[in-house]
Amino acid sequence: MRTRGWLFGLWRQVARDHAFEEYDAPVLESEDLFVRKAGEEVTEQLYNFEDKGGRRVALRPEMTPSLARMVMAKRNGLVMPVKWFSFPQCWRYERMTRGRRREHYQWNMDVWGVSGVEAEAELLSAITTFFKRVGLTAEDVGIKVSSRGVLAEVLAALDVPDAKFSATCVLVDKLEKVPLEAIQGDLTALGLEESVVRRLLDVVQSRDFPSLEAAIGAKSTALAQLRQLFEYARAYNFEEWLVLDASVVRGLAYYTGIVFEAFDRKGELRAICGGGRYDKLLETFGGEALPAVGFGFGDAVIMELLESKGLVPSLSLGLDALVFAMEAGLQGIAIKAATSLRAAGLTVDLQLEARKTKWALKHADRLGATYVVIVGPEEVAGCNVRVKEMATGQQHVVATANLESWISATFTTTSPESAFADSVNRS
Amino acid sequence: MRTRGWLFGLWRQVARDHAFEEYDAPVLESEDLFVRKAGEEVTEQLYNFEDKGGRRVALRPEMTPSLARMVMAKRNGLVMPVKWFSFPQCWRYERMTRGRRREHYQWNMDVWGVSGVEAEAELLSAITTFFKRVGLTAEDVGIKVSSRGVLAEVLAALDVPDAKFSATCVLVDKLEKVPLEAIQGDLTALGLEESVVRRLLDVVQSRDFPSLEAAIGAKSTALAQLRQLFEYARAYNFEEWLVLDASVVRGLAYYTGIVFEAFDRKGELRAICGGGRYDKLLETFGGEALPAVGFGFGDAVIMELLESKGLVPSLSLGLDALVFAMEAGLQGIAIKAATSLRAAGLTVDLQLEARKTKWALKHADRLGATYVVIVGPEEVAGCNVRVKEMATGQQHVVATANLESWISATFTTTSPESAFADSVNRS
Repeated sequence: MRTRGWLFGLWRQVARDHAFEEYDAPVLESEDLFVRKAGEEVTEQLYNFEDKGGRRVALRPEMTPSLARMVMAKRNGLVMPVKWFSFPQCWRYERMTRGRRREHYQWNMDVWGVSGVEAEAELLSAITTFFKRVGLTAEDVGIKVSSRGVLAEVLAALDVPDAKFSATCVLVDKLEKVPLEAIQGDLTALGLEESVVRRLLDVVQSRDFPSLEAAIGAKSTALAQLRQLFEYARAYNFEEWLVLDASVVRGLAYYTGIVFEAFDRKGELRAICGGGRYDKLLETFGGEALPAVGFGFGDAVIMELLESKGLVPSLSLGLDALVFAMEAGLQGIAIKAATSLRAAGLTVDLQLEARKTKWALKHADRLGATYVVIVGPEEVAGCNVRVKEMATGQQHVVATANLESWISATFTTTSPESAFADSVNRS
Repeated sequence: MRTRGWLFGLWRQVARDHAFEEYDAPVLESEDLFVRKAGEEVTEQLYNFEDKGGRRVALRPEMTPSLARMVMAKRNGLVMPVKWFSFPQCWRYERMTRGRRREHYQWNMDVWGVSGVEAEAELLSAITTFFKRVGLTAEDVGIKVSSRGVLAEVLAALDVPDAKFSATCVLVDKLEKVPLEAIQGDLTALGLEESVVRRLLDVVQSRDFPSLEAAIGAKSTALAQLRQLFEYARAYNFEEWLVLDASVVRGLAYYTGIVFEAFDRKGELRAICGGGRYDKLLETFGGEALPAVGFGFGDAVIMELLESKGLVPSLSLGLDALVFAMEAGLQGIAIKAATSLRAAGLTVDLQLEARKTKWALKHADRLGATYVVIVGPEEVAGCNVRVKEMATGQQHVVATANLESWISATFTTTSPESAFADSVNRS
């Protein structure tokens, strides 16, 4: 939990620096919010069931449909653009594998109401800002970028109907995981002629702008948008993280334009995060289309990567003092001492049961306390307590009434990075 | 979400000041973790179902059973006492009423491994510290305290078997909600003689120490523990919040000793929070008993109370600056300006689509921005940007290269309490 707090704290700070607002949505949703017919993994692995009232419901596999429903419901009252972030917990009904659990958290950021790639650029700024702050470099991580607009243009040129676009994208996405033969069969089953399949497979080979331009032509709108995005990336100073890769399509049916996914350059892990533009999602819910782009960034793969690079800090409880009474009858004095220190903003553990002084000192050491406040009969007789500085072993007899000011005056944080890492000094 | 962040931030800070560690547990649990046969509302309203693998599962109605299972599993590796807190989301399958939703969040704090009332006192310190910090007084809120030990002693003296204890407590708890006659019937159905029922109803009338002593005798262990707890409350300085009330039993089957619940003194709302000692819960899971005490503090009733008292602050996004380009071709300069300000720790909204200057200024006003940074062709020609201070309307032409240092130098927070209220300055 300390580590999760640290990770979420970094994510939250990046989102706030970009002036995004946090939102939340129900964990349990109507199943029909997620059921789509494009053969996506996300709907195949839906954690769905019938509730006691006979309703078909599901633990959400992703946040975007809930967000879309909320935006649609409040559309007239929202000032565009909407820039929102969230940390949804998501579920999939599937066997667990490395980097894929049944239950996980995601960092989501979305922009609604912006049709230009300025929105994609802003989201990629958030992702790369996080990478930089956590200590990763563009040599560790890259972000593959492409656009489904490329596929759309190819299909349109070959007179393939729009209705086949989503399912085609989902199948092309599977290219990375299943043999080419299997995909070709599925594409044929979708009713695509072999010539179309060959053309698609040819175009998604492109790995740089010259070859993409050669594949789809200089007048391509998708190509122009990708060029614009890379230009903005230079202004933001994250261009070195981007890799043009036309084979990136992403597995969600609703993406319509630019798509991207972050990957470890060593190629050992699953995708770190992914996202894209989904301008038509509201239409599938019976609403009017509204431009939108977003990403989902799971907590599992990034933690594997950060741990392998030694970038996860050792986080302590951040305990300032342990207060303990040597005798049960002195507990009231210990309570007063602990309460005054807490009122001054210190993190104070109060010993709640009779223990030997030796045990308490060992306990304080184990917890990483800066001070131990010992309430013993001799000291109390003189209206004092004893304070031991754990780092130096020095002991001081301090008037109980002055304890708080004495500690505040001598206090220096010697502990490692504390669990308060997600608390940010804004003053 | 701003308000929730503010509330959770206060809760988290109190828990940390008391040196508790945060934990979490799965939302979805095996149903048998929650099914008990004492007639509790919490199991009657269980949000349970069968998953695709034929497992009986439930969305947790409360956190304590999950915590108990975790403590039991790791018992040998845990240093006692365990002091943990959490913000579980919990579900109930029931119609929604005021202060009761199907889905809500709780603040939970628990102490494991302490058999004395020092643990209860520490938890009540956390609860009252929160009340004080949020601006509530002991005239607004009281905490009724009693002990199930009182009922246990009465039942033991009348030779009622232990096996009937939990179900008896759950029924006595319902006294506040259903007519006496209905309860008497249920108590009789449980096999309790009428004389026992009359004796129980007599004892739970006690509202102060003299009458409780008169009802159960001066040698009662439960009475001595309650007296000790009130004495500690004096040392902590929260005694004025406590109200001895033997009718408080709480509705969960597993409580064994002291129980408590916070209430609004006007008597308009449901219980604000509740808790108690549950020393035998691990036994019901097949483990060895381990003393434990904890509370659950829902987010619904407290927010009703705080809103009615005007104690919920108006929280802004805390936007430091809106950066916008007057022409699409200047977006790169705007990006550079926004990025430099964000790197300095400012919350910066970057305009992502072409708008008139008038619109941007109105938008900045609506968002409560401190500054607007205007990237226009004239200024850019001179390597400058224009900065407008929203509070004064003053405009300044600033060299783009110096923007970050200029704003840092002039920056004063004039905005109301921001959404960063949960970020605490620990320096």
